[in-house]
Amino acid sequence: MAHIQVPEGIFGIRSLVMYRPDTGQHLYALAQALLRNESPLSEAERELIATFVSSLNDCNFCAGSHAAAARFLFGQDNALVDQVIQDYQTAPVSDKLKALLTIAKHVQEDARTVSDELVSAARDQGATDRDIHDTVLIAATFCLFNRYVDGLATLTPTDPTAYEAMGERMGTIGYVMPTLPA
Amino acid sequence: MAHIQVPEGIFGIRSLVMYRPDTGQHLYALAQALLRNESPLSEAERELIATFVSSLNDCNFCAGSHAAAARFLFGQDNALVDQVIQDYQTAPVSDKLKALLTIAKHVQEDARTVSDELVSAARDQGATDRDIHDTVLIAATFCLFNRYVDGLATLTPTDPTAYEAMGERMGTIGYVMPTLPA
Repeated sequence: MAHIQVPEGIFGIRSLVMYRPDTGQHLYALAQALLRNESPLSEAERELIATFVSSLNDCNFCAGSHAAAARFLFGQDNALVDQVIQDYQTAPVSDKLKALLTIAKHVQEDARTVSDELVSAARDQGATDRDIHDTVLIAATFCLFNRYVDGLATLTPTDPTAYEAMGERMGTIGYVMPTLPA
Repeated sequence: MAHIQVPEGIFGIRSLVMYRPDTGQHLYALAQALLRNESPLSEAERELIATFVSSLNDCNFCAGSHAAAARFLFGQDNALVDQVIQDYQTAPVSDKLKALLTIAKHVQEDARTVSDELVSAARDQGATDRDIHDTVLIAATFCLFNRYVDGLATLTPTDPTAYEAMGERMGTIGYVMPTLPA
């Protein structure tokens, strides 16, 4: 049970943005801009970074839902999502994405350890300022979302089909503020 | 020097939201709603929680600027800001605020450790659902801001008067998206 009285039967962050919509609307608008607006990183790659950070934070709700969104967006290559979570260094992703995931990992642990060397290593693999910026902001943003969801002990489904449905919604309509049925 | 090319001479998160305004606008709108809209916690108390979490994350820019905002808002009681940073358990703040700071500390470290016991202890001191919600969201949000600012190595002033000016601005006009001079 959640630590505060949120709408019943609503999962994860959705229950929280319904509880306080005047802050929630900005969290959804941030997710939509960051994960869906124009970026050198594909939507699938951005969902993968979100999944990776949520997994490092052991946030089952965010890791499960964004992994489902990443799988939906990668389509036939969707097996790489679990490979990245298990060991991104040996997963079948580009060296540029591996260097960015290393930066994301440092942001999650202690952002002050994102060194000139890590940034240079990403640039050597073709990363631009925007790749580096977007990676850091996605990693930082999920350090917020993960803590919000788990700090208030929100409802986390255990049925995998619930996550599949979320992933398809996130991969098609994106991040739209939820409202309670009238 | 920052890891990416942001506007020169602009401090901390301001340089980043100018670099990517389509995400930055939502970060500023979130800060304004969370720290300035109606809440059972005063603006000064909310700035204090933001300062406390930023200090735990060793983010000099956010800790320095929000401490200055908290000092400005507390007025003649402003010495308590440094006392809270040094040891909140012995600082001259209410037992309710101490219990909420304990929750904020757990959100910063590992949000899954915000237990029923910690929440009950806060309720015993008069904390409501909204106190608990707002504390968790402020702590989580500063885990984002701190990582964004430090993960991209933004310009951090060392002159205390620079922070005083920021604190007065944050305590009066609040969080308004910065724009470059025309």
